[in-house]
Amino acid sequence: MRINKNHFNLIENYLFSDVANKVKKYSEENPNKKIIKLGIGDVTLPLCNAVIDEMKNAICEMGKKETFKGYGPEEGYLFLREKIQSYYNKKGVNLKTDEIFVNDGAKCDLGNILELFSVDNTVLIPDPVYPAYVDCNVMAGRKIKYIDANRENEFLPLPSEKDKADIIYLCSPNNPTGAVYNHEQLKTWVNFAIENDSIILFDSAYESFIEDKNLPSSIFEVEGAKKCAIEFCSLSKTAGFTGTRCGYTVIPQKLVFENQSINKMWKRRLAAKFNGVSYIVQRGAAAIFSELGQQQIKNNIRYYKENAKIIANALDELNIYYTGGINSPYVWLKCPNNMKSWDFFDFLLQRANVVGTPGAGFGKNGEGFFRLTAFGDRANTIEAVERIKANIKSN
Amino acid sequence: MRINKNHFNLIENYLFSDVANKVKKYSEENPNKKIIKLGIGDVTLPLCNAVIDEMKNAICEMGKKETFKGYGPEEGYLFLREKIQSYYNKKGVNLKTDEIFVNDGAKCDLGNILELFSVDNTVLIPDPVYPAYVDCNVMAGRKIKYIDANRENEFLPLPSEKDKADIIYLCSPNNPTGAVYNHEQLKTWVNFAIENDSIILFDSAYESFIEDKNLPSSIFEVEGAKKCAIEFCSLSKTAGFTGTRCGYTVIPQKLVFENQSINKMWKRRLAAKFNGVSYIVQRGAAAIFSELGQQQIKNNIRYYKENAKIIANALDELNIYYTGGINSPYVWLKCPNNMKSWDFFDFLLQRANVVGTPGAGFGKNGEGFFRLTAFGDRANTIEAVERIKANIKSN
Repeated sequence: MRINKNHFNLIENYLFSDVANKVKKYSEENPNKKIIKLGIGDVTLPLCNAVIDEMKNAICEMGKKETFKGYGPEEGYLFLREKIQSYYNKKGVNLKTDEIFVNDGAKCDLGNILELFSVDNTVLIPDPVYPAYVDCNVMAGRKIKYIDANRENEFLPLPSEKDKADIIYLCSPNNPTGAVYNHEQLKTWVNFAIENDSIILFDSAYESFIEDKNLPSSIFEVEGAKKCAIEFCSLSKTAGFTGTRCGYTVIPQKLVFENQSINKMWKRRLAAKFNGVSYIVQRGAAAIFSELGQQQIKNNIRYYKENAKIIANALDELNIYYTGGINSPYVWLKCPNNMKSWDFFDFLLQRANVVGTPGAGFGKNGEGFFRLTAFGDRANTIEAVERIKANIKSN
Repeated sequence: MRINKNHFNLIENYLFSDVANKVKKYSEENPNKKIIKLGIGDVTLPLCNAVIDEMKNAICEMGKKETFKGYGPEEGYLFLREKIQSYYNKKGVNLKTDEIFVNDGAKCDLGNILELFSVDNTVLIPDPVYPAYVDCNVMAGRKIKYIDANRENEFLPLPSEKDKADIIYLCSPNNPTGAVYNHEQLKTWVNFAIENDSIILFDSAYESFIEDKNLPSSIFEVEGAKKCAIEFCSLSKTAGFTGTRCGYTVIPQKLVFENQSINKMWKRRLAAKFNGVSYIVQRGAAAIFSELGQQQIKNNIRYYKENAKIIANALDELNIYYTGGINSPYVWLKCPNNMKSWDFFDFLLQRANVVGTPGAGFGKNGEGFFRLTAFGDRANTIEAVERIKANIKSN
C-alpha cells in the first residue's frame, strides 16, 4: 500500500505549542507571577440557558422509546435548517432549506468540501491566514498561491490579474487580523471569481461580531455570490459551541461548475461519508435562533466585544496601529518599536505577564504583528491592558 | 474551477428509496393493512439511563463558567479513550490511548481515512457489501476489485492470489450477511495482508453482538494485525448511538507503510480537518463503558438478539438457508423457491405485509438473497415471523 505522498509537504505548525512551551517555562521559573492569556481563540463564557434547556429536553426524548431518534438526515434536521433559513432572511438573503447543510464545525466542511474539486485546481489563500486552509490543500496536492494582506491594504487584499486561481479562500471578519470586507470590496471579489470561473470558499465564522449595519455578514448579501461562493459558518464563536460542535454550510443551487451542481455533489458526498450531527446538538443549535436564544447569545457577544474595545482603546491611547477590535473578537496590532512578533511575545510575557499570539505564526505577512483576543474574562482583560500600557509607555 | 470528475463514476444507489416507494404505494392502496418493517438498519430502543444521566451532567457543566468546556482534543478526551482502552484490555488486546481516536461514527472515518493513501492503490471489497465502501473509493478514483461472498464460502470469503490488493475492506459481523469470521479465517486475511504489503480496513460496528467466546470481536485479537490493520468501531448499534453519533478508530503505532506512521499521519489530518466530537456526546459514550452502562446496553443487545433468534428459528423451521442471526443483528436468507430478491420483496410485502431488504441491492452476489434485521419491536417481530411462516408454507 502506498501512502498519499502529499503529506510529506505538510509543514508542522508549532505556533500554539511553542507559545504553550514558553509560557510553561516562564511560569515554572516565576511561580508567583499571575499570567493573563489573551492568546487563545477559544470562548470562555458558558452555553446560554436557552441552549442548555433545549438540549436537556432532547436528552430526555432520547431516553424514551416513543421519542427516541435514530439516524437523522445527513444534511441536518429540517427544524434547524428552517431556523438558519430565517436567520439569513433577516439579513435579506433568501435561501432554500436544501441549500443549507448542518455541519459539525466550519473547519470540517472547509476541508472536506475540497473533495468535490479536482486536485489540479490552483488555490488562492491570503497571508496571514488560518493555517487549516493551507494544510488541507497541501494534503490533496493542490498548487497554492498567496495574496498579501498587509498594512498597505489594511489587511483586506483585493485581487488583480496575477491572483487568478480556481479556488479562493476568504475569511471576513478575518482570523487572525479582525479586518472586515465592506460590500464594495466583496463585490470586487465576487466579480473577479465570476470572470475567472473561480469558486470562493467564504469563512464567516465570526459574522455575529459585526455590528456595523453597512458591513456584509454574509457573502450572499453581495449580488452574484450565489453563482460563485460557498459560505461556511460555525456556532463556535456565535454561541460558544467550540466544544459542542455545530455549524452550517450554505451551497446555493445556482452554484454550477462544468454543468454539475455543487449542491448535489455535496449531498452525494455526505450520503457516503457522513451521518449528520448529533440530534441533541442540533436541538441546542436550534435554540440559538429562538428569540430568547438570540437575546442570550447577544449578551455574550457584547461581553466579548466590550473586551475587544478595551484592548483597542488602549492601542489608540498608545498610538499603535491595529486592525479588528470593532466588528471582530480579534485585535491585530503592529508590534511597537518595530519589534518582531516573537520578540514582542517575549517582551509581553516577561514584562507584563500577558500572553498573545505572534503574528509570524500565521504567515510571512504576520511578521512584526501580534494577535490579542477578546474571549477572556473582563477583569483579566482590563488588568492585562493596564500592564501592557504601563510597560510600553515605560519602554 | 474544475470539479473532481471521479464523481461521474458514482452509481446512485436507490435501494432504500425504492423500498420506501414500494411500501408507500402499497400502503396507500391498502390502507387497512398493518405493515411490519424488518428492513431498517436503525435501532429502536432508547438510550440507556447511564448514558442519559451522564449527558445531563455534562450539559449542566456546559452551562456554568467554572466547568464549561471549549475546544477539546481532536482525537477525543482521554477519559473516553481510557475507557475504550480498558474495554479492549478485557478482550486481551493491549492498546495505548494514543492508538485510539474518538470519531463521530464509523462511516465518517471509514471514508476519511482513505485520504492518507495514494489514489493509485487498488482496493478489494467483498460483494455483497455496505455501499459506502465502494462510493468513497469511486469518488477518489481508486480501482476496485471485488471478492465473491456467496453460499459456497458461507459468505466469508478468503483471499487467493487473484485478490491481491493494497487496501482491503473486511466487515465482521458482516453487514448485510451477518456472517462472522473465526480466528483462523481472520489470521488468513492478516497473513495475506502482511505478505502483500496491504492494509486491512476492519469494520467492527457489530462486534458487541458476538456472544460466541471463540469468535474474535476485534481484528487485533489476531497475531500480526497491528502491523496491517485499522479497526473502525461505532457505538451506533452497541448502545443505540445512531442519532447521537460516536465511535472510535484504532490505529496501531506499529502500522507503518513506506516508513510512515499511519497513526501520526491521521493525527495530522485531524488537526487540519476535525475539531473532535461534542463533549456532551463523549461523556455519554464514556458512560457506556461503566459497569452500569455495560449492564444496561447488554440488556438492549439481548433484546435485539432474541429478535434475531426468533427470525432464525422460523427459517430453521422452514428449512431456509441463512447466515447471521446468532452473533449478529442481521439475518441473510436465501429467497425461497429460487425467487429473485425483488420478487421475494414483493411477495413478502403483498402476502405477509412484511418489509425486508432485497439482497440484490448490496451487490451482484446478493441476488436471490434477502436481509431481515433484529432491530424491531419484539411483538412486531413475532407477528412478522408468523406471517412469513404462514405464507411460505402455503405457497
